[in-house]
Amino acid sequence: MADSEALPSLAGDPVAAEALLQAVFGVVVDEAIQKGTSASQKVCEWKEPEELKQLLDLELRSQGESQEQILERCRAVIRYSVKTGHPRFFNQLFSGLDPHALAGRIITESLNTSQYTYEIAPVFVLMEEEVLRKLRALVGWSSGDGIFCPGGSISNMYAVNLARYQRYPDCKQRGLRTLPPLALFTSKECHYSIQKGAAFLGLGTDSVRVVKADERGKMVPEDLERQIGMAEAEGAVPFLVSATSGTTVLGAFDPLEAIADVCQRHGLWLHVDAAWGGSVLLSQTHRHLLDGIQRADSVAWNPHKLLAAGLQCSALLLQDTSNLLKRCHGSQASYLFQQDKFYDVALDTGDKVVQCGRRVDCLKLWLMWKAQGDQGLERRIDQAFALARYLVEEIKKREGLELVMEPEFLNVCFWFVPPSLRGKQERPDYHERLSKVAPVLKERMVKEGSMMIGYQPHGTRGNFFRVVVANPALTCADMDFLLNELERLGQDL
Amino acid sequence: MADSEALPSLAGDPVAAEALLQAVFGVVVDEAIQKGTSASQKVCEWKEPEELKQLLDLELRSQGESQEQILERCRAVIRYSVKTGHPRFFNQLFSGLDPHALAGRIITESLNTSQYTYEIAPVFVLMEEEVLRKLRALVGWSSGDGIFCPGGSISNMYAVNLARYQRYPDCKQRGLRTLPPLALFTSKECHYSIQKGAAFLGLGTDSVRVVKADERGKMVPEDLERQIGMAEAEGAVPFLVSATSGTTVLGAFDPLEAIADVCQRHGLWLHVDAAWGGSVLLSQTHRHLLDGIQRADSVAWNPHKLLAAGLQCSALLLQDTSNLLKRCHGSQASYLFQQDKFYDVALDTGDKVVQCGRRVDCLKLWLMWKAQGDQGLERRIDQAFALARYLVEEIKKREGLELVMEPEFLNVCFWFVPPSLRGKQERPDYHERLSKVAPVLKERMVKEGSMMIGYQPHGTRGNFFRVVVANPALTCADMDFLLNELERLGQDL
Ligand SMILES: Cc1ncc(COP(=O)(O)O)c(C=O)c1O
Ligand SMILES: Cc1ncc(COP(=O)(O)O)c(C=O)c1O
Repeated sequence: MADSEALPSLAGDPVAAEALLQAVFGVVVDEAIQKGTSASQKVCEWKEPEELKQLLDLELRSQGESQEQILERCRAVIRYSVKTGHPRFFNQLFSGLDPHALAGRIITESLNTSQYTYEIAPVFVLMEEEVLRKLRALVGWSSGDGIFCPGGSISNMYAVNLARYQRYPDCKQRGLRTLPPLALFTSKECHYSIQKGAAFLGLGTDSVRVVKADERGKMVPEDLERQIGMAEAEGAVPFLVSATSGTTVLGAFDPLEAIADVCQRHGLWLHVDAAWGGSVLLSQTHRHLLDGIQRADSVAWNPHKLLAAGLQCSALLLQDTSNLLKRCHGSQASYLFQQDKFYDVALDTGDKVVQCGRRVDCLKLWLMWKAQGDQGLERRIDQAFALARYLVEEIKKREGLELVMEPEFLNVCFWFVPPSLRGKQERPDYHERLSKVAPVLKERMVKEGSMMIGYQPHGTRGNFFRVVVANPALTCADMDFLLNELERLGQDL
Repeated sequence: MADSEALPSLAGDPVAAEALLQAVFGVVVDEAIQKGTSASQKVCEWKEPEELKQLLDLELRSQGESQEQILERCRAVIRYSVKTGHPRFFNQLFSGLDPHALAGRIITESLNTSQYTYEIAPVFVLMEEEVLRKLRALVGWSSGDGIFCPGGSISNMYAVNLARYQRYPDCKQRGLRTLPPLALFTSKECHYSIQKGAAFLGLGTDSVRVVKADERGKMVPEDLERQIGMAEAEGAVPFLVSATSGTTVLGAFDPLEAIADVCQRHGLWLHVDAAWGGSVLLSQTHRHLLDGIQRADSVAWNPHKLLAAGLQCSALLLQDTSNLLKRCHGSQASYLFQQDKFYDVALDTGDKVVQCGRRVDCLKLWLMWKAQGDQGLERRIDQAFALARYLVEEIKKREGLELVMEPEFLNVCFWFVPPSLRGKQERPDYHERLSKVAPVLKERMVKEGSMMIGYQPHGTRGNFFRVVVANPALTCADMDFLLNELERLGQDL
């Protein structure tokens, strides 16, 4: 090969690349952004798995395809995907499409860098620091540390790992075998990631002591105290309490002040899983729900949920200023974190994490925040609370709807009681039959594509709907639609 | 609030949203895609951190900003970011901008769903399954399991967790305390994520037994055998060997057949960390480097590296057909994985992972593969090998360049010996002085923005450059430029 002779470039020429991307962007705007957020369109286009496989022709083959075929594939992918930005998507703790956040995501993807060094991510290293500083300020901390993790589950795991490392720095090298049995505490309403994390981190799910919650779903501090005593009596060493601000199903806020008192008394690390509820800190009106959070050692907060920043966007925030994160996770790889660089290597944040390559998760949030300001985001939170309140009042007014409880957050939980069961609460099979209603309605709404609402059993309660009021584009009309549609779908039951 | 009265929508109207996104997309095309991949533009625009903070005005304030200001911010973010798609970006194990993969990423972001249930990710649940099937077929498996993880480090951790769970299913519940000390084996050339993983999983870094590598960086099977014996003699229980296919610095491939023999003899789980080298399986010419990989129990493979799929894209592949992944990680959360759904709940793959929300990482790879076919991707790999070979031959021809070793992969490692040190190998301070050269050249290239190459010390060797030939758009001219530029930058040293 002569040194001046270029191999044919297979990456294609930039003109063709631009043409493709322009065409795809056109499809995205029409199908995902316009139709995908329009109430007059379906929220989903249900297909049975076997049929969908046929429609998508997923197989990867030897030969490549033409640009026309590729565009057709892009259209099909969007067509058969669920529109999570749609005003009738109430199914998860995230919903809605924020155009600024999406703009930030598109820029992130076009730059495709990794967050580990200032060298290759100068803008994002500084930006992450600033966004974390802002989130910490909302928690009530003027200093501290933090990092964006690939989701709240991993943020929670980080907290557990940091707490055990702080108490037993040896365990990084020597592992858990030489330690006494450890115990961590969380309420029965906690997110399942606490259990998953305990297993993954080698503690085992037995190390999770489940504290009672009251009928609203809030941790009972007296039972926490009791469980700590019991664990100690059994020879275990309590090291962490994970309180939840905004539980997954009921949207409950644990009483942080009382829990912080217990933690202080026993010298325990207080972690607050505010993956769902953290964004309430932006609202002057509602932030009292998290009173006491400033006493936490760590907080997990997912802007990809209530703030609609886009998956994944989860911050772990720490009060620590002793470089705990880096001491706990660092391994000083000399090929990446060279110490003889020409800039301040403290800017290379990559050794704070257990990942190596790490996506840029801060830009989408930063850009949205710049566009909205604290004020715009606060209005969104307040509006969501107002709409949830509106929905609750409507539920109370209408026949055949029964609230599970007065919500304190944006999870509105209720039963749809179909005509055939109304006034039949005394029948012995009432609860069993009521429990079968939500799955049937779910199937109907999904197959019609008219809306999506999650349901679940919970403790001794049979299946009920959980409507999550999170999409910033929602209006009262959407709430009305939701209830009317349930009535329509369930009138023959 | 009257039930027909809508709250003002703060999500903005769709027309304004579209206008914003169109404008941002225009900026992305001009700045990130066109200029960002053009050899006539800078690969980076270096600024000192303090100056960059001023330029970016990162602070998040109370008031939101106008659309014009937001567009200016988008331009600034792109301007000061490193262009990892640029033909002069040789700094990491990923490089280049594949337009189809980027199209897949933009669609992913516009749909913003989570991969946990068929309910909200029907297309992507099926697509992930198909992509994993394809990757497994390239490994040589006609059945098995797998999942996309947030990076190769976490894929490696999964493998370790699965191996210990398979041997001691109890540890999920009871933790490591009741187990004998465990030992895992990997070579000194392994990626640091093995150490980080051992610490995170509670095993401790002491559980990682470091096996010798030969002068090419390949694990020495005889020393593996010896280390296993030693660990057993010390009372530890060996359970896993992590071999590396494509080491991070030298690009070495461990001898998998010989290592698999050892694993078979001792009943150990064989994990292959093919995060970097896995994509070589696509090349009929070069796949022999991974001979024996079909004997592994698990494989980690990052298409975000050599295939330029975009961060994050990392597959963990398993030979297992016993549902180990779900048994090991599952927690059967009833609010998400309801068993009374109207479709086959085996399609809800979310309980296979330790995450809850999980990004869609398969579409970008699938779309690129559809466009390229196996053949197109194979040509890319073969071309990268040819270009690396070209670069090596040029290095040998030129004065002042010294290869660290003949590479077998795409990591081309060499010293630039500046004029003042040429022919001075006998001087006592030669190595010390040579070691200082790469950091100086790195500073110069970054400040000029002409190219980016990583350097590192390695074992007893002082700092040398590691050029990674991965960008599919590279030509021989780029290789020539690289060497000429080094000579230009270092002529006065
Ligand atoms: C209270 C709570 N914590 C943590 C999580 C986990 O967050 P992620 O899905 O980002 O892992 C969730 C998810 O729903 C949650 O509701
Ligand atoms: C051999 C090897 N394994 C694993 C990893 C980790 O992959 P990731 O950066 O996706 O965590 C790397 C990263 O460079 C690597 O080189």
